[in-house]
Amino acid sequence: MPLIRFDLIKGRTDKEIADLLDAAHEAMLEAFRVPVRDRYQIVVGHDKSRLRIEDKGLGIERTDKVVVVQVTSRPRTTAEKQSFYRLLGAALQKRCGTAPGDVMVSIVENTDADWSFGNGEAQFLTGKLGASAKMPGTGPKKREG
Amino acid sequence: MPLIRFDLIKGRTDKEIADLLDAAHEAMLEAFRVPVRDRYQIVVGHDKSRLRIEDKGLGIERTDKVVVVQVTSRPRTTAEKQSFYRLLGAALQKRCGTAPGDVMVSIVENTDADWSFGNGEAQFLTGKLGASAKMPGTGPKKREG
Amino acid sequence: MPLIRFDLIKGRTDKEIADLLDAAHEAMLEAFRVPVRDRYQIVVGHDKSRLRIEDKGLGIERTDKVVVVQVTSRPRTTAEKQSFYRLLGAALQKRCGTAPGDVMVSIVENTDADWSFGNGEAQFLTGKLGASAKMPGTGPKKREG
Repeated sequence: MPLIRFDLIKGRTDKEIADLLDAAHEAMLEAFRVPVRDRYQIVVGHDKSRLRIEDKGLGIERTDKVVVVQVTSRPRTTAEKQSFYRLLGAALQKRCGTAPGDVMVSIVENTDADWSFGNGEAQFLTGKLGASAKMPGTGPKKREG
Repeated sequence: MPLIRFDLIKGRTDKEIADLLDAAHEAMLEAFRVPVRDRYQIVVGHDKSRLRIEDKGLGIERTDKVVVVQVTSRPRTTAEKQSFYRLLGAALQKRCGTAPGDVMVSIVENTDADWSFGNGEAQFLTGKLGASAKMPGTGPKKREG
Repeated sequence: MPLIRFDLIKGRTDKEIADLLDAAHEAMLEAFRVPVRDRYQIVVGHDKSRLRIEDKGLGIERTDKVVVVQVTSRPRTTAEKQSFYRLLGAALQKRCGTAPGDVMVSIVENTDADWSFGNGEAQFLTGKLGASAKMPGTGPKKREG
């Protein structure tokens, strides 16, 4: 957790994809302060006609390098989210040459009980991982980090 | 926002996909009253064996034209959602010949802080877009539209 | 409902995919006590470089058989979720030879109004399906099952 799905237009090399994922993970590490191996990334490449990403009237230009980033995470503060947007845009620009206007993000939140990282267990509930400080009643106030 | 993912069986032409997306967007414009460029659509085609969509015992018949529509959106009223289901089914039938029984929808809600439309910003929080009237404390009571 | 998306590395046969989906559905039937035709499954195969699934520092080993399972459902109890994780891991091990460390799950919840199973209707609201007992004010206390 967080689990991140990247939708983009086909045609990038493996190296370009690896750079994109590394850059996004660095932004995530800094913004959400998750452990370094808290990394769950899925990339889906599409034909151009299958990705229709406009701009809500904001005047943002999209190119063929547009990336849609869908994040599923336990609750995060507004400040953490804003930090992620900023750091992600900067990291993709620096490491991948992606224009900041080409990075769109949408986050959906869930809770401690909604994650199993393997072995048939809900590790946030069994004590193997710290429960969220923001979800009263679901565990100790320890935060993983 | 809303961000919509369409999962369907491979084999449609680009024209058929474009018609599907246009029809769905028209339903969205009318049901949720979003701006015309508030359009974020992703289509994924699958081999038939990779899409297993039954009917919860309702007696609804599915064909190879089945479409699963997953919507991520800020909160919408029950009336808006019901309107979207109705208009979407009608639009896909009229413009694409899709049977109403072949259109399944699932919605997940998030909040103003969960969206960045580009440039590393959370536009619902920075005032570039109106914050949701339904989320007290997150901004002015203005609604985009 | 629930709607389940499986992301995995390409290369499985149709038979292997069918077994995976059957095993997952059996776990769902037992854990969430849904009707037998309450089955909505989507499988997406990826090149290995497009799926980056680590272990949050838990020491869980991932192989090329890793499966990421994203569930969208109306509210479920913590006990139901834990039961699903356990049963899913066991079923995939028994029927597909998947190691329990290769099964990761993430759940996102929504409500009665967020589902249309076809025909432009919200069946949990119209009385064609029982509304959730856990969502006060959305319908009778009957639970489908």
